[in-house]
Amino acid sequence: MPRSFKPIPSAIISDRLRFQGLKFTFLSQELRFPNGAQGERQFILHPGGAVIVPITATGTFVCIRQYRFAIADYLFEFPAGTLEPGEEPFQTVLRELQEETGFTAHRWDDLGHFHLAPGYSDEMLYIFLARDLEALLDPPPGDDDEDLEVIELSAEELTERMATTADFDAKTIACFFRAQQFLAHEKALDGKAGLTQP
Amino acid sequence: MPRSFKPIPSAIISDRLRFQGLKFTFLSQELRFPNGAQGERQFILHPGGAVIVPITATGTFVCIRQYRFAIADYLFEFPAGTLEPGEEPFQTVLRELQEETGFTAHRWDDLGHFHLAPGYSDEMLYIFLARDLEALLDPPPGDDDEDLEVIELSAEELTERMATTADFDAKTIACFFRAQQFLAHEKALDGKAGLTQP
Repeated sequence: MPRSFKPIPSAIISDRLRFQGLKFTFLSQELRFPNGAQGERQFILHPGGAVIVPITATGTFVCIRQYRFAIADYLFEFPAGTLEPGEEPFQTVLRELQEETGFTAHRWDDLGHFHLAPGYSDEMLYIFLARDLEALLDPPPGDDDEDLEVIELSAEELTERMATTADFDAKTIACFFRAQQFLAHEKALDGKAGLTQP
Repeated sequence: MPRSFKPIPSAIISDRLRFQGLKFTFLSQELRFPNGAQGERQFILHPGGAVIVPITATGTFVCIRQYRFAIADYLFEFPAGTLEPGEEPFQTVLRELQEETGFTAHRWDDLGHFHLAPGYSDEMLYIFLARDLEALLDPPPGDDDEDLEVIELSAEELTERMATTADFDAKTIACFFRAQQFLAHEKALDGKAGLTQP
């Protein structure tokens, strides 16, 4: 049978800063585990991130294809960015949508949040749906290392490629799932609202 | 309009080991970006991980609720583990399914792979669907820091909770998406096969 549940979290005995990086901090903790054993665990303290799922008037999804130095390869992703100090997630997505896609949006919906990589990072990702897009005549410049292309894909194309290729990262797949559920729920509500109206 | 595409990857000028952790390495690279600028970027070298999506005979999904020290909280996740040195992903999932859930599986399908956190880690996750589950009479012991409960959830419960709560991490949502697409494809093929058979 599956093993039993011990709902006693690990106790933190001590914290130790291991390395102060440019964007995040590498920490180690000495922990006492629920079974009484003791050990060191290491992880990144991350300021958090925010992701935009931008949808055009025709229902296509705006993705970026960008170079990722950590994997020395290109990936397809929804536009996203790290929270600047003191910044609310909604400010981050307003900025990143413009910088990464050259679009601004007039309709925003909150798609909630989730942890990205809880095995070694405390990063929380905040997700927003962006609609009523408008292409900026003079988009702001991106970061120095920017190497990206804006690509629009249909829901069908995204579903197929996310299911069968490694072109998209985990957050982009998870955000697409969230967006699809939100849109289905919205459609169901609209349908019901229609039924009760004269 | 969306900005133009410059398909020239960043050139690596130098590597520097910043911190050798217990499970992974923290590296920094001096890069020359496509626009000619130069800068330092830091990320984790990770051995990779493997995730299991276990489905019971009645169609429920086997999840674990485990304590994650990086966020000092519990999360619902599909069972998963880090690749040991020289280990193939399929060996990892055979081991982790037994250790984390107390089940073994007699039917496995490959659900492909994706990157987890390409902003600061080179980790690739390999995903497997596990069916024909059998509860082990004498499951192997887990890790020292183990603090987990095994929970079965229906596809409907998972869909609802993944869409509206932060109880699940990005990889678990993305793996559920992959599994659902695989099962839908399998069902469609079975349906077609049935039509062509006498």
